[in-house]
Amino acid sequence: MAQRYVRIKTDREQVYYGLLQANRSVAVYDAPPWLGGQATDLEQELDTYQLLAPCVPSKIVAVGKNYLKHAAEMGTPVPKEPLLFLKPPTTIIADGQNINYPSQSQRVDYEGELALIVGDRCHQISPEQAAKSIWGYTIANDVTARDLQKKDGQWTRAKGFDTFCPLGPWIVRELSVEAKIKTFLNNNDIPQQSASIGDMVFSPEVLVAYISQIMTLTPGDIILTGTPEGIGAMQQGDNVRVEIEGIGCLSNQVV
Amino acid sequence: MAQRYVRIKTDREQVYYGLLQANRSVAVYDAPPWLGGQATDLEQELDTYQLLAPCVPSKIVAVGKNYLKHAAEMGTPVPKEPLLFLKPPTTIIADGQNINYPSQSQRVDYEGELALIVGDRCHQISPEQAAKSIWGYTIANDVTARDLQKKDGQWTRAKGFDTFCPLGPWIVRELSVEAKIKTFLNNNDIPQQSASIGDMVFSPEVLVAYISQIMTLTPGDIILTGTPEGIGAMQQGDNVRVEIEGIGCLSNQVV
Repeated sequence: MAQRYVRIKTDREQVYYGLLQANRSVAVYDAPPWLGGQATDLEQELDTYQLLAPCVPSKIVAVGKNYLKHAAEMGTPVPKEPLLFLKPPTTIIADGQNINYPSQSQRVDYEGELALIVGDRCHQISPEQAAKSIWGYTIANDVTARDLQKKDGQWTRAKGFDTFCPLGPWIVRELSVEAKIKTFLNNNDIPQQSASIGDMVFSPEVLVAYISQIMTLTPGDIILTGTPEGIGAMQQGDNVRVEIEGIGCLSNQVV
Repeated sequence: MAQRYVRIKTDREQVYYGLLQANRSVAVYDAPPWLGGQATDLEQELDTYQLLAPCVPSKIVAVGKNYLKHAAEMGTPVPKEPLLFLKPPTTIIADGQNINYPSQSQRVDYEGELALIVGDRCHQISPEQAAKSIWGYTIANDVTARDLQKKDGQWTRAKGFDTFCPLGPWIVRELSVEAKIKTFLNNNDIPQQSASIGDMVFSPEVLVAYISQIMTLTPGDIILTGTPEGIGAMQQGDNVRVEIEGIGCLSNQVV
């Protein structure tokens, strides 16, 4: 199994980065591993911590319409260049935390996505350099108030509510280009969304290189790589689970 | 004269918050004043420091079309609700630093704006509470690649390039609602933009209250309150200066 990098809060309210062990204890690191953090002698036992979102980005850069069939279901062509938008860092919640259904919306959708964690400062780099600057991968849900997205034109409000970016549960460093991404509602066996990471129009390294021509990326920043076809609404009480082969699953309830 | 709160880097590469004195030395604070920072015994002499942008926000929330005449010049109605977008923190530069003209654009505009500094954690607050949570005021230039704004639909790229948010030079705590905002190009006597802060469609406290219904604001966050009429293009070599009565002026060169 791939190594799983986590961020935790202990029952003494201390926050650590670390590596999840097979017995679910955590080998504590002295800093975020993408900043050169190393393992310490400290081991945090199972049941004495909770998982947090696995990093604290200075920005979350997201990409619209990066799967052919999703662009089609939205009734729009695939952009010739990546279409960027931002989510504020206050959207982030961890695996298991609740998504708050805002009173301003009558239609809140899941969007399962692969998230990239940036490892280096990236300023105007090539796709080849970008491939080395992607430190790891995790799972995200780009929760979207679909009615407000259409109404506002700009997507900032629709995608910017507190709790609208579930992220985690951990980071892995390697991922197969053939890994499947699936989104499930409640305990349904049939996924709402199912695609391969390799179906992306713009690959992770092309996205990072493209973004770095505009804004400097810094270690710990997050890139959301777009959602595949099969988007749909969530109701209060629903559980939504995004799975990516080789990473794990990210599960959250709507309240 | 109003008290001017600054952030500086000393010639020993130390970064401090502080209060600018009449003789241009800086009374150094032990933390950002909106986090309860207090004056120390340290005084940093003139010519031994440079001004930085006066705060380090976790997010920059900006508002589109918040002056009637600017909405008209863009050929669009004033929104019924504030229209929000985000600029990444990597856009921020200080007074006197250079705005980089990106190769991807053939039309880069100035947009002089009043910026608000948030002093408290704001989550679903009223305009009355918001008035108390605005810690201070500074000047911003919401630099915009106008051609990319039209092309992309989403404004993230057009407004998100590195150096596209000159901010400063300092923060004042009080501002008259009748204060004039003016933008000058080069040494022209006639301003490109001239309006009163009071001409805003949505006032500062209404904006902060509105945003706080969507995303939690945290101390040090920045709100850009929109630009008045008179937007226009800048060329490489141009100097752009935004003045607000009661604050000062923010001056940057395009390179």
